[in-house]
Amino acid sequence: MSEKKTDKTEAKKTTKGISVSKDADFSEWYSELVQKAELADLRYNIKGFVCYMPWAVITMKKMYEKYERILEKKGHLPLIMPSLIPESNFKLESDHVAGFAPEVFWVTEVGAGEKLQEPLALRPTSETALYRMYSYWIRSYTDLPFKRYQSCQVWRAEGTKATRPFLRAREFHWIETHNVFATEEESRQQIIEDMETTYEMIEEEFAIPIIFFQRPEWDKFPGAVHTFAADALMDSGKVIQLPSTHMLGTNFSKPFGVKFVDKDGSEKLGYINCYGPAISRIYGAMIAILGDSQGLILPFDLSPVQVVIVPIIFKDSGTPVKVKCAEIEKKLSKHYSVKFDDRDHVSAGEKFNEWELKGVPFRIELGPKDLEKSQAVVVNRSTGVKSPVKIDALEEFLAKESKEYTQKLKSRKLAGFKDYVIKCSTMDEIKAAVDDKKMACTGFCSIELEGAKCAEKIEKEAQAFVRGKRFGKDDAKFEKCAVCGKPAKETVYVAKSY
Amino acid sequence: MSEKKTDKTEAKKTTKGISVSKDADFSEWYSELVQKAELADLRYNIKGFVCYMPWAVITMKKMYEKYERILEKKGHLPLIMPSLIPESNFKLESDHVAGFAPEVFWVTEVGAGEKLQEPLALRPTSETALYRMYSYWIRSYTDLPFKRYQSCQVWRAEGTKATRPFLRAREFHWIETHNVFATEEESRQQIIEDMETTYEMIEEEFAIPIIFFQRPEWDKFPGAVHTFAADALMDSGKVIQLPSTHMLGTNFSKPFGVKFVDKDGSEKLGYINCYGPAISRIYGAMIAILGDSQGLILPFDLSPVQVVIVPIIFKDSGTPVKVKCAEIEKKLSKHYSVKFDDRDHVSAGEKFNEWELKGVPFRIELGPKDLEKSQAVVVNRSTGVKSPVKIDALEEFLAKESKEYTQKLKSRKLAGFKDYVIKCSTMDEIKAAVDDKKMACTGFCSIELEGAKCAEKIEKEAQAFVRGKRFGKDDAKFEKCAVCGKPAKETVYVAKSY
Repeated sequence: MSEKKTDKTEAKKTTKGISVSKDADFSEWYSELVQKAELADLRYNIKGFVCYMPWAVITMKKMYEKYERILEKKGHLPLIMPSLIPESNFKLESDHVAGFAPEVFWVTEVGAGEKLQEPLALRPTSETALYRMYSYWIRSYTDLPFKRYQSCQVWRAEGTKATRPFLRAREFHWIETHNVFATEEESRQQIIEDMETTYEMIEEEFAIPIIFFQRPEWDKFPGAVHTFAADALMDSGKVIQLPSTHMLGTNFSKPFGVKFVDKDGSEKLGYINCYGPAISRIYGAMIAILGDSQGLILPFDLSPVQVVIVPIIFKDSGTPVKVKCAEIEKKLSKHYSVKFDDRDHVSAGEKFNEWELKGVPFRIELGPKDLEKSQAVVVNRSTGVKSPVKIDALEEFLAKESKEYTQKLKSRKLAGFKDYVIKCSTMDEIKAAVDDKKMACTGFCSIELEGAKCAEKIEKEAQAFVRGKRFGKDDAKFEKCAVCGKPAKETVYVAKSY
Repeated sequence: MSEKKTDKTEAKKTTKGISVSKDADFSEWYSELVQKAELADLRYNIKGFVCYMPWAVITMKKMYEKYERILEKKGHLPLIMPSLIPESNFKLESDHVAGFAPEVFWVTEVGAGEKLQEPLALRPTSETALYRMYSYWIRSYTDLPFKRYQSCQVWRAEGTKATRPFLRAREFHWIETHNVFATEEESRQQIIEDMETTYEMIEEEFAIPIIFFQRPEWDKFPGAVHTFAADALMDSGKVIQLPSTHMLGTNFSKPFGVKFVDKDGSEKLGYINCYGPAISRIYGAMIAILGDSQGLILPFDLSPVQVVIVPIIFKDSGTPVKVKCAEIEKKLSKHYSVKFDDRDHVSAGEKFNEWELKGVPFRIELGPKDLEKSQAVVVNRSTGVKSPVKIDALEEFLAKESKEYTQKLKSRKLAGFKDYVIKCSTMDEIKAAVDDKKMACTGFCSIELEGAKCAEKIEKEAQAFVRGKRFGKDDAKFEKCAVCGKPAKETVYVAKSY
């Protein structure tokens, strides 16, 4: 991206706003967005640990609420588990421990240097905490399906990768569901439900375009039989994994003894699935994908302030304008989260910039001339459209516009996303596509282990990864694998990745 | 309580219900309540760590929502902080570290035995995580008052005390507010606000009678100038501390550099307060104080299921009764969380017991004879009152009854609480009162350090503690200290305690 670095100075704005455009330098744009919109602070004095600030936390809480509501509607009940896991639990499933052990923070002491008898892991994920308890709680087929979730944080000391607030940090905030079924077929049905939940939340509510994949054999969750996950494409040209869901089969039920007595009286192992939407990470992807060079753009429901009222005051015109603003505030507060920004020491222009930076969906401007005409100007943050609206008609106008706000934002993003998927038949085409910040869609020999060699070749030559085959919807078939030329069993997607 | 142990067998019920009455053996009653209503599981394999189960977690989530809403209404904004604290931060305030050090869990390693350069504390409370960041965030008097909260868990390895789910465990779930003010007077005003919040939540919403105290000098939070806290009285005759709030003065702002430039241009230290309602503990106190020998009683808003419909079916009467039950369920679900318990393999009597155990506020019973009369029977869990109600009038009936449910529960508890405070003028009277599971209200020389000796005497002779003087409301004065006979500067309360 170095050729575009010169845009940086050209695009420079006020010191308070973001100094680079999103196109010019996505990475710098994201860092400044997080800092200037006061979303997170990286100055906490432990490497990789981030403080999340009110404007981000309010939105994340709303995202948690929406996600929990849909999970509960689909039969998951909430639990709270201890966040520490005994080393002995942690080591019971060998692939799992191999996958996570390098990233675990260990509690070894208590008080003034007293050694614990057994080290305790800060959970990197909760399988090995939960399934021991599941072996107590599940007895009979009548207990199944057994669907639970918890909203919590997890800790992972991800080695050398740089901290990116929300997107990558050593403590992150997620929901994890852990479900037990009597049969493999039911556990596969749950994957379809998880996929639907993912689209309903990530695309419909958070307006992030995604593709839901079955991951290749070589890119599975440690301990899983199959892994499925959604990817979103960032403006950097890299994909980011949003929720993933895993069929664990009986890999964990065996060592942890998650068994049930079936109708016929025989004892069977349960089939376990787990699904992990990481709210802090989804928030990061959302602000990165929806935002523009002015700052945040947020779905209407998720913005901490939905409507801001800014008086435009010259000389002595203040009082009547402010009185009317306060009236409007009172009226609209019945329906929305409204802020009347009546600060005297800040100019209207600075206020415009500040609330655009913070992504407030609607700004109402009211000056003395508007007042004469009994109107106000409503500015839509997402489209930039300015509409003069009669003050009496503001409620009606916003009722309609607010309903459509997220929908339109989503449609625009989805339409744009289509241009980012490029059909490729050769390695050169794949390389060209991912270098142009796109995803390549291509024929591939196999997503079983025999395909790993071709994936390695793509990684080496194009610095990109086989993300898997689209799940839940068939893609057009290619004849040949773009790498080895053998018949293409699958159509896969290739992209650079975080 | 050994003299009452014989009641245990007398009060024995079905194996599914609680086998002792609350009066007979409070401690056993509480344990069985937690286990049989499926609120928590103590079999997790780390000492002092508890799994919280759906029926409890759903209610705790509602409590969190209510508490967060009131805090936000009063100007606190949410934050999310890392849960680890560098040892160097932790040691900056000497009283604080002395108070908490024995209880801290330390993270010392990462991955496969790699030692951390600096040990990291699992937060036992967040002052030393937050105030370093506050020194970055607070610059000017215009940033004050600075009011923040976070909802999170904390870890404390409380030594030898037995684990009591919700009431005492090594990981618990709370809210902590941390506020900075320009003056000591404003920080004192915040104590009054916190007291009001405490009454609004703990008494009004959760129906737990409390007294809000200023704690004596010898019973302060480590690092505090003054500590204030609410106590509730359990049926065991012991008080439990519910939220506490602390004036930290400039004790923390000094070492952490929490300073601001005042109007006059001079740099000043901020006055800091913190307030810590522990939701899991309040939940424990609530179920302990409100429950009866049949099981839970919950405030209406907080019950996971608010109305349960139980069909009473004989022989072939099932279908029309069930159809009507389903109709009622559909209608009431618009307003409440409703469960139609249509299990065929469970008798109506067993269902009654189960939902009483779980504390569902209203049970609607409907049998064929009721159906003939177009009526149902509504049973109030809190009062036990059974009301025949026309099916068409159910919505109206419940609208009124549900509104009054928590209010009446609270009034009954508050009225009862008055009998539990006994005025005492001598040590013998104090002893008699606390041995009779009451609180003693008595004259006391001083809650400054000079009074500590008299408090020790009470502790030794009556195994009870001086909880402090009532804050926010003056009590009638006593002439003399019940212990040393000197003039009584204060009226204090004495009780046994958890």
